[in-house]
Amino acid sequence: MNAPTHASHVLPAVVQRITPPALIDALKERFGERCSTALAVREHHGKDESSFTVPPPSAVVFAESTADVAAAVKLAAQYKTPVIPFGVGSSLEGHLLAIQGGISIDVSRMNHVLRVNAEDLTVTVQPGVTRKAVNEAVKSEGLFFPIDPGADASIGGMCATRASGTNAVRYGTMRENVLALEIVTASGEVIRTGTRAKKSSAGYDLTRLMVGSEGTLGVMTEITLRLYPLPEAISAAVCSFSSIEAAVRTTIQIIQMGIPIARVELIDVNSVRMVNAYSKLSLAESPMLLMEFHGSPNSVKEQAELVQEIASEHGGTSFDWATTPEARTKLWTARHNTYFAGVQSKPGCRVISTDTCVPISRLADCLLESVAEADASGIPYFLVGHVGDGNFHFGYLIDPNNPQERETAEALNDTLVARALRLEGTCTGEHGVGLHKMDFLKTETGLGAVNMMRTIKHALDPDNIMNPGKIFSW
Amino acid sequence: MNAPTHASHVLPAVVQRITPPALIDALKERFGERCSTALAVREHHGKDESSFTVPPPSAVVFAESTADVAAAVKLAAQYKTPVIPFGVGSSLEGHLLAIQGGISIDVSRMNHVLRVNAEDLTVTVQPGVTRKAVNEAVKSEGLFFPIDPGADASIGGMCATRASGTNAVRYGTMRENVLALEIVTASGEVIRTGTRAKKSSAGYDLTRLMVGSEGTLGVMTEITLRLYPLPEAISAAVCSFSSIEAAVRTTIQIIQMGIPIARVELIDVNSVRMVNAYSKLSLAESPMLLMEFHGSPNSVKEQAELVQEIASEHGGTSFDWATTPEARTKLWTARHNTYFAGVQSKPGCRVISTDTCVPISRLADCLLESVAEADASGIPYFLVGHVGDGNFHFGYLIDPNNPQERETAEALNDTLVARALRLEGTCTGEHGVGLHKMDFLKTETGLGAVNMMRTIKHALDPDNIMNPGKIFSW
Repeated sequence: MNAPTHASHVLPAVVQRITPPALIDALKERFGERCSTALAVREHHGKDESSFTVPPPSAVVFAESTADVAAAVKLAAQYKTPVIPFGVGSSLEGHLLAIQGGISIDVSRMNHVLRVNAEDLTVTVQPGVTRKAVNEAVKSEGLFFPIDPGADASIGGMCATRASGTNAVRYGTMRENVLALEIVTASGEVIRTGTRAKKSSAGYDLTRLMVGSEGTLGVMTEITLRLYPLPEAISAAVCSFSSIEAAVRTTIQIIQMGIPIARVELIDVNSVRMVNAYSKLSLAESPMLLMEFHGSPNSVKEQAELVQEIASEHGGTSFDWATTPEARTKLWTARHNTYFAGVQSKPGCRVISTDTCVPISRLADCLLESVAEADASGIPYFLVGHVGDGNFHFGYLIDPNNPQERETAEALNDTLVARALRLEGTCTGEHGVGLHKMDFLKTETGLGAVNMMRTIKHALDPDNIMNPGKIFSW
Repeated sequence: MNAPTHASHVLPAVVQRITPPALIDALKERFGERCSTALAVREHHGKDESSFTVPPPSAVVFAESTADVAAAVKLAAQYKTPVIPFGVGSSLEGHLLAIQGGISIDVSRMNHVLRVNAEDLTVTVQPGVTRKAVNEAVKSEGLFFPIDPGADASIGGMCATRASGTNAVRYGTMRENVLALEIVTASGEVIRTGTRAKKSSAGYDLTRLMVGSEGTLGVMTEITLRLYPLPEAISAAVCSFSSIEAAVRTTIQIIQMGIPIARVELIDVNSVRMVNAYSKLSLAESPMLLMEFHGSPNSVKEQAELVQEIASEHGGTSFDWATTPEARTKLWTARHNTYFAGVQSKPGCRVISTDTCVPISRLADCLLESVAEADASGIPYFLVGHVGDGNFHFGYLIDPNNPQERETAEALNDTLVARALRLEGTCTGEHGVGLHKMDFLKTETGLGAVNMMRTIKHALDPDNIMNPGKIFSW
């Protein structure tokens, strides 16, 4: 990687700590074949969907229980060696990279749905359960878990990054939908952060402190989530617009009117072309909104009619309905495949993904200027957005072997983040800080808040072994 | 107060720290007449709606700006002297009591609505603004702030206790509705915890850590809240039942069916009698549900019809509608006056208020046994509940000069809390821990979680000056 000038993609200068052979021995003794030092296994656990490359962890422990995680962390603590939890590896921000060395704790075998409490609309799962598996487990009860970041991420990973996605405009994010956690702390102790009560004022909100802490304060071993009754009626639609601006202005009006839309996603014309090629579709090549409405049949009809009215005021055309589950699945699969469609459109490329989120009234300003800059740059990109929340992603498609492309993409992101912060927004709506946004975080919150985070980290993890080097420097 | 046997109402043994005269001098120099040591002023700031009596603070500072709060905290920090923020004094759990001495920082003059961002559905206020004042400020924009704990509490106080109340079943609690805070830390530094973006994954969730921290981690000086469009249609109704059980089973079914009811409040027959006497009403003397529906006219009609069906299956009768704003105000004023009606029903009494919250499927079990115990005890009480959230309050009316009554009431509460915890609930749904529930918190979360809270407190407030002695012992 060439020496870059933009702070946001410089990997922080850190010392790789040496993993003591005695720790590996102790882990092998405790875990047998479930502790692997095979290069292929380590390499698989030493990368994610970010564009960074660092050496892999020294070993991978496949945990199957809370006791396993606690034992692994205790041993690591004894040798002051980093531990990095691993779910399915879908992080976009370098969260999983062993930037200071250490061991990876793979929780993908902790994939049991422990308790479905249908009457209370809660489910308790292990961290390796994926969001699709949660939905499989609860659908026979007429329930669903709405948080949908696209990838079939692990629930543990989604907690760690405070994930959200396409349904958040109506159902909130992981912040609003995690009721309680079981955590293995930096000393290997097992604690619980809450009960199954829907609300509580019982002391500090440790649940919310852990959600979004990116593995830096503890490893989640059990997660209680809120569920929702499957809507009586669901209806989805696609609407094309002559410009991104028209689509965005439609969205702003939907939100300001308080219409309880369940999903409202923007995809730009680049994305449409890539998805058409990847998924063999023939969507009209124009910016479009993908929408979904949940409720009683009457309420869904009412919402849809209101939205159609708003859309047509902004020139929206060809409102196509997908009322069958199959048609809806096809639609959302196409949306979720944008990322992979983008990757496939430029062989060998990596994606640099932006994640700004702004107050809804600022969305058009933030988006349109950034689109103009991206178009002018010559870097191929796709643009998708959870626009109902003011959150959108450019995926800049760069050749990892071409430093100039990376440089250009990062410069675009820097400008975009600076713009979002000026508009009272955030550098990351849902992907997390990881390695990629540490400098942005300082600008966004100011040093005072970062120092408070750092003070908490120092107090709860004094040897800096929990996913060190992420979010902020030690 | 007689020596009690129940841990929950023993004031923790703490040493009153001496407020150094030099600190009082320095505060008087900085604040002039806005620093008061008059006994009447101190006594007003040394009590709340709890049943505890302790010596008042040594001085009261009337802050008018963030700079004032920062200056007061800096001086207090210099002399390692406790500071206790004060809003309107409506805490039920002893949060405002100067149990270790120190000074009260009254923020009631920080009562400005700083920015209404109607297009983004946000408002930024100072901490002394009350919830009714927020609603006054935003109603001309067609917006409202739904969190309604009954009392016209300050927004700062509502943040500090993670308050909720009658609308939480639909709109969530302060946890879900605070976007960002400005905080004065224990060293007197001013920090910001977030932006106006609707969601964010930018580092630790300091906003949620502060919400519910009861003044023990910092003083809130600016608060950004979420707003909602005023519903197109609102309709409220009262329904009488032959038993509490029938009312509770109706509620459980409403929630499990996912009907987006905006309010569903239980009041028992004792409360009805007290409210009738206090508010000169003639409500039928039976347990009842007070309900409110928000939405489009069609959706409100649909919700109400469904609920009527469910209620009549459980023998609910005389479904009375309040469709005009005046009729609704009368209804909710009656509900909110239950507390004062209870106090007036027994002259000279104090209220010991319970606050358990359980998963909705456990609500009937938790409530009915506790009602039987309260009836058997001979202590007069009222019972009200935000039953849609599984949260309810007994108000035991005790003679503060009769140790036996206090003892009996606390024993009832002890039994109730133990039952709620067995049913996977919490000791406090919305009032906070304060002085009254410190032992319950340990039982509820386990020592591991309390120790994590303590570690955070020690790190962020090493001299223990921020509202010391609340939530947990040092």
